[in-house]
Amino acid sequence: MAKIYVVGLGPGAYDDMTIRAVNALNACDTIVGYSVYVDLIKDHFTGKNYLTTSMKKEVDRCRLCFEEAEKGHTTAMICSGDAGVYGMAGLMYEIGEEHPDVELEIIPGVTAALSGGAVLGAPLGHDFAVISLSDLLTAWETIEARLKAAADGDLCVAIYNPSSKKRHDYLQKACDILMTGKKPETICGLVRNIGREGEAFEVMTLGELRNTEVDMFTTVFVGNQATKVVRGHMVTPRGYRDV
Amino acid sequence: MAKIYVVGLGPGAYDDMTIRAVNALNACDTIVGYSVYVDLIKDHFTGKNYLTTSMKKEVDRCRLCFEEAEKGHTTAMICSGDAGVYGMAGLMYEIGEEHPDVELEIIPGVTAALSGGAVLGAPLGHDFAVISLSDLLTAWETIEARLKAAADGDLCVAIYNPSSKKRHDYLQKACDILMTGKKPETICGLVRNIGREGEAFEVMTLGELRNTEVDMFTTVFVGNQATKVVRGHMVTPRGYRDV
Repeated sequence: MAKIYVVGLGPGAYDDMTIRAVNALNACDTIVGYSVYVDLIKDHFTGKNYLTTSMKKEVDRCRLCFEEAEKGHTTAMICSGDAGVYGMAGLMYEIGEEHPDVELEIIPGVTAALSGGAVLGAPLGHDFAVISLSDLLTAWETIEARLKAAADGDLCVAIYNPSSKKRHDYLQKACDILMTGKKPETICGLVRNIGREGEAFEVMTLGELRNTEVDMFTTVFVGNQATKVVRGHMVTPRGYRDV
Repeated sequence: MAKIYVVGLGPGAYDDMTIRAVNALNACDTIVGYSVYVDLIKDHFTGKNYLTTSMKKEVDRCRLCFEEAEKGHTTAMICSGDAGVYGMAGLMYEIGEEHPDVELEIIPGVTAALSGGAVLGAPLGHDFAVISLSDLLTAWETIEARLKAAADGDLCVAIYNPSSKKRHDYLQKACDILMTGKKPETICGLVRNIGREGEAFEVMTLGELRNTEVDMFTTVFVGNQATKVVRGHMVTPRGYRDV
């Protein structure tokens, strides 16, 4: 049976891939992905047929996978971070309804909430939400409602896509909504270029985060009321010391 | 400088570890962890000094790491899933305040939201929350407030620790709270024994989930209003097909 692996690469470095992801890519003859992700891995997996499409061509990219698989090629669709979290796994299932003869295997990867969290310390040590500020595919009102919910529930938050050229003030707006339920003193942090050249982190308060400029290669973390700075890092305790 | 790696192992199988996690464990002479996690890896990393403590001895386990590191042993603390998400990274930073001479490196891993998600399909393809139902360290009122927030924000939810001997009706209670904001028809799923022998998944509605018995080796997924069943799997679309 024809097979497609939908593979989460993790943050970008080869070492952050799982062994299962490496084995799957080694087993493939065709690897399909957004060109930026192909560039991350092509030196590690040579002799493969790489096929790329540009951003915003996600449906075409998925169809290309199924076409390749139906030609008899063992094929991988690669995603940065995890295969499912804002990744291609869902769309591959949807497009796959037209291709019931092709088997899908989803291989998870380390999403930015985890890889960035490891750089910052332990910002997501207790219950948390993952929310993207990109309104390309989601109404801004929906994003606002989710931020408000996270604030009301005192959830930690990992914020994906906090900024872009067209959305330079979205993080500021998000912080204002979060501050309807969280104090301006809430400990926050951000990680730039996770797992890539120029990786750097900063710890700050929610009030300071509101006035911080970030780019699209940044992941932002907002604490809960117990989050604190420990050894210069952002730590949300689970409460083991209080038992 | 003495060094401790805090390593997320992923769901349990060797292949689900990242290369960075494998390299770190290979570089260590001492590996500290809860005995169940040590059993998962000890055949793959031989010639190591394994030190275990029982459950609920997390503070002791962390202190043991720092003692070993200060004796000159390169040491790893192992966690299942991710090192930070309900893992030991935060507590290691806290205990580490007494040991500023010991360096900490956190190595992230594939948490159950991602590994279970990959088995189910793509349940977390859009904004989501991760919430643990364990009230060992967290007041039940806090857990309730977070479930309510996730329901109000139409967030997908990955539920950790959905049950235990003492908490056999917690998932039922959680579903009742989620149904204050989500419809009983909301698509949900669960995965048992992720990455281990007996791995199995089921897709059902939130109403059905309420009346389903689960054990502590199960991770539960609750969809948002767009979540659907595709090819027998649970898929939360991000919306690529609607552009």
